[in-house]
Amino acid sequence: MDPLSDRPSEGRLRARLHKIIFGVKTPAGKAFDVCLLCAILLSVLVVLLESVPTIREQYGLALRIAEWFFTILFTIEYGLRLWTVRHVRTYALSFFGIVDLLAILPTYLSAFVMGPQSLAAVRTIRLLRVFRVLKLVRHLREAYGLMEALRASRPKIVVFLTGVISIAIIFGTVMYLVEGDDAGFTSIPTSIYWAVVTMTTVGYGDIAPQTPLGQLLALVLMILGYAIIAVPTGIVSAEIVRGERAISSRACPHCGRKGHEPDAKYCRVCGIRLQVAT
Amino acid sequence: MDPLSDRPSEGRLRARLHKIIFGVKTPAGKAFDVCLLCAILLSVLVVLLESVPTIREQYGLALRIAEWFFTILFTIEYGLRLWTVRHVRTYALSFFGIVDLLAILPTYLSAFVMGPQSLAAVRTIRLLRVFRVLKLVRHLREAYGLMEALRASRPKIVVFLTGVISIAIIFGTVMYLVEGDDAGFTSIPTSIYWAVVTMTTVGYGDIAPQTPLGQLLALVLMILGYAIIAVPTGIVSAEIVRGERAISSRACPHCGRKGHEPDAKYCRVCGIRLQVAT
Amino acid sequence: MDPLSDRPSEGRLRARLHKIIFGVKTPAGKAFDVCLLCAILLSVLVVLLESVPTIREQYGLALRIAEWFFTILFTIEYGLRLWTVRHVRTYALSFFGIVDLLAILPTYLSAFVMGPQSLAAVRTIRLLRVFRVLKLVRHLREAYGLMEALRASRPKIVVFLTGVISIAIIFGTVMYLVEGDDAGFTSIPTSIYWAVVTMTTVGYGDIAPQTPLGQLLALVLMILGYAIIAVPTGIVSAEIVRGERAISSRACPHCGRKGHEPDAKYCRVCGIRLQVAT
Amino acid sequence: MDPLSDRPSEGRLRARLHKIIFGVKTPAGKAFDVCLLCAILLSVLVVLLESVPTIREQYGLALRIAEWFFTILFTIEYGLRLWTVRHVRTYALSFFGIVDLLAILPTYLSAFVMGPQSLAAVRTIRLLRVFRVLKLVRHLREAYGLMEALRASRPKIVVFLTGVISIAIIFGTVMYLVEGDDAGFTSIPTSIYWAVVTMTTVGYGDIAPQTPLGQLLALVLMILGYAIIAVPTGIVSAEIVRGERAISSRACPHCGRKGHEPDAKYCRVCGIRLQVAT
Repeated sequence: MDPLSDRPSEGRLRARLHKIIFGVKTPAGKAFDVCLLCAILLSVLVVLLESVPTIREQYGLALRIAEWFFTILFTIEYGLRLWTVRHVRTYALSFFGIVDLLAILPTYLSAFVMGPQSLAAVRTIRLLRVFRVLKLVRHLREAYGLMEALRASRPKIVVFLTGVISIAIIFGTVMYLVEGDDAGFTSIPTSIYWAVVTMTTVGYGDIAPQTPLGQLLALVLMILGYAIIAVPTGIVSAEIVRGERAISSRACPHCGRKGHEPDAKYCRVCGIRLQVAT
Repeated sequence: MDPLSDRPSEGRLRARLHKIIFGVKTPAGKAFDVCLLCAILLSVLVVLLESVPTIREQYGLALRIAEWFFTILFTIEYGLRLWTVRHVRTYALSFFGIVDLLAILPTYLSAFVMGPQSLAAVRTIRLLRVFRVLKLVRHLREAYGLMEALRASRPKIVVFLTGVISIAIIFGTVMYLVEGDDAGFTSIPTSIYWAVVTMTTVGYGDIAPQTPLGQLLALVLMILGYAIIAVPTGIVSAEIVRGERAISSRACPHCGRKGHEPDAKYCRVCGIRLQVAT
Repeated sequence: MDPLSDRPSEGRLRARLHKIIFGVKTPAGKAFDVCLLCAILLSVLVVLLESVPTIREQYGLALRIAEWFFTILFTIEYGLRLWTVRHVRTYALSFFGIVDLLAILPTYLSAFVMGPQSLAAVRTIRLLRVFRVLKLVRHLREAYGLMEALRASRPKIVVFLTGVISIAIIFGTVMYLVEGDDAGFTSIPTSIYWAVVTMTTVGYGDIAPQTPLGQLLALVLMILGYAIIAVPTGIVSAEIVRGERAISSRACPHCGRKGHEPDAKYCRVCGIRLQVAT
Repeated sequence: MDPLSDRPSEGRLRARLHKIIFGVKTPAGKAFDVCLLCAILLSVLVVLLESVPTIREQYGLALRIAEWFFTILFTIEYGLRLWTVRHVRTYALSFFGIVDLLAILPTYLSAFVMGPQSLAAVRTIRLLRVFRVLKLVRHLREAYGLMEALRASRPKIVVFLTGVISIAIIFGTVMYLVEGDDAGFTSIPTSIYWAVVTMTTVGYGDIAPQTPLGQLLALVLMILGYAIIAVPTGIVSAEIVRGERAISSRACPHCGRKGHEPDAKYCRVCGIRLQVAT
């Protein structure tokens, strides 16, 4: 499959389809995007509804028909993408290429691997269809700014998570010692589970300390968790404030460096005079 | 009903009433606002109390009288607003016009649609009176700044919500597979319900994972939810900081320096008088 | 009781005691502060321990002795404050004067109002001693900056709270209609209680929706609560950032206005040249 | 043990080992760090797994062998650190020296203090091995910035915690009075435990108010807790923003302008070359 077409008419069709499927600026491209968005949401809804026993019994056939309808739709979409894209291999191995394949594969697989001995496998495969929800990511252009902010604060988030897990391990071990089996702290992993449930302020209440000392330690852990939630918030806030500042500023005409302060007259890296911000 | 009055005395009365009802600067306007505020709060309280069985039995008559008192009060208010407003249609179809109508309609409707066969309908209609609480919005002038900040960060909030829901769908499906019916994960929608309950750190505890793998996944979800709460917080913080900065962004007519505080009269760099912010 | 002393030696003693009791710069003043802090914490601990049935039975006498010890101590402190303070009435009617009085009054009252018929009243009065914890506020000098930030963002916080309560009332009413008595939504106030428990992510789990529609609404409410926690956080963050900027800056020599930007050369209010920041 | 070696070859070996063990820049140093990191994580996992009854029974021997393997590994590491470090005493008494000792001591102690009468003591000692997790802190170089931000906001955090605890004490006492024994509020400490559980939005649900007044107070406490979480978040956000600003605060030698970005080489206002930040 050559990236450039053999016949001029096919080449033009391909270019037009590429614009519709991958572009967002033409009216047809926008319409395609909206249709695809609806198809994704509806097909995920079908998967969710199929797992409810009462609904599956009543509307089983309708759901299966809808399922095949969406699978064929996504297969056509995947085929068109493969055909119109410039570098087939790059697309097929990219995040979106794999997600697009994963969206159609489970239905076909479950049709072939039918048989009473492999029910559990089929069930697992069929549920993989829920990963279709990842096709949504393509439509979230605003997400890139957020992703950038999260990536920039990754080292700090690693530190934060290590801190949270370390505190959970230490408190879990101490609570296992203090409370014992009666209160539900049957092993250190269970105690750590309780510590995380408490620290993240989820608080299921299935395990709760009984002794006064255990309750005192639980109080300390709660207030700790309540206070250190400030840390990731502060990190991300600072990052977003900085990210917005960087985006909204001028580039140096010499070195292209961005992120100059509003009152900057000279590039901070090469000393060349900047143009006045409008 | 002509927007401008036919007789001068009626015109003057209307103008004065308009000032009292819609204005906030005259003492009479302020007094009207405070009275209306109290009436709204009390009438909502009446609706709430009427739903408590013991209170309804004991004080049923008093509550019904209070109900009609407030309904007539709000009817008079609605009539005066219709009469004094310049563009009747614009007001009647605006958010506040609809809210003002919704505040009185249910009581009248419930009086007409009486009958043993429509008890459920009447009950539903009567409860609509609780939307009177939306009349409060008119009195929250400070809210506009907040609304502005929220509106400006809407695209990012959409991304955030899509992310939260996607994570909930994927974790819900995986947990449905891992945990099964015994632990309460009876269908994917129920599992997703559990995932949102866990991720938002609500943690009812009516459904809780039982297997070690399920508990491990729950831990990951909790810490994820605990960490990504930082994202909306960061977005809104950055937006509020930017909103406040925007207010104070008059430029000096002499040196062009921006970023003057809201109360600044002179440029902080060259001492030249600034123009008054509008 | 004249604010200025009649005899010189008494006057000097009073001035010295005033320095020790109200001041924090002398070593004696610091030592007094630390002792008082310990006495407050210990006396509150005594009140707390006295309410535990098993501890009251075992150590009842010791606790009662400790109680009287602290009461006499605080009485002496209150007396000395009254004696050494310049304006007796101002102190006695100030927040700290009332707190200091409240710290000693309950013990004396409970001694006088003894009798089998007034046990409940005595119990209530005795528990008022816990308000001694408010004596701590005096030692939190850092709190003033925080209080300032909170006061400055009060109008926005009122808007936020009104919003939270309005959402809780509306969701509570709708859930009362959707769920009904079986799931625990027995009245609108109870439903509102559930809505606040859910929205603030507390999630006791004593009331939980049972119908699919109710669970869907609960999901919306949870995500709403999870997202709008960003609003107060953003407000307070912006206020603290602004507050710190204001505190750390120079005052105008002419009008005393503070909060000048780091690069300001002229006062933004009166246009007078500022001194260079060091 | 002289800090400088007696024989030249030993000195060179020691210097090389010091570079590998304490340094991070050489490939050997990096490899050593990664191996140590894995050893720490695996050894903590062994401690956690050993506490699960079913796993201990099945894989008891394997776990004990792994335990001794890691203990000997950490002993060698501790020995090498003692040998290669310049000031033995300083290291041995430093935070990391004590943590390194604590990581190996419990296993040796539990081997010596064997005997049926001291089972509980042995169990406690063995669990101290979990503090090995603190060895991770050495590898979190990013943590120093966060620690700095937390240390700078310590006075405000003390104020915040005092506030939280005071509110919990007052609400706990009032709820003890309002609710009484039936709802689980058996003593003031238990009530305070409930107040903290509610305020930090953990919400176990093991204790919940029953009376209308109690539920109303609970609502106030929840909304309070939900709102004041904004305070630590605001504090830490402001501190991180300030910390990042401080890093970039070199002054221009020509015009004295501050606030240059970390990568700035030239002043953004006058274009003069800046001094390199140290």
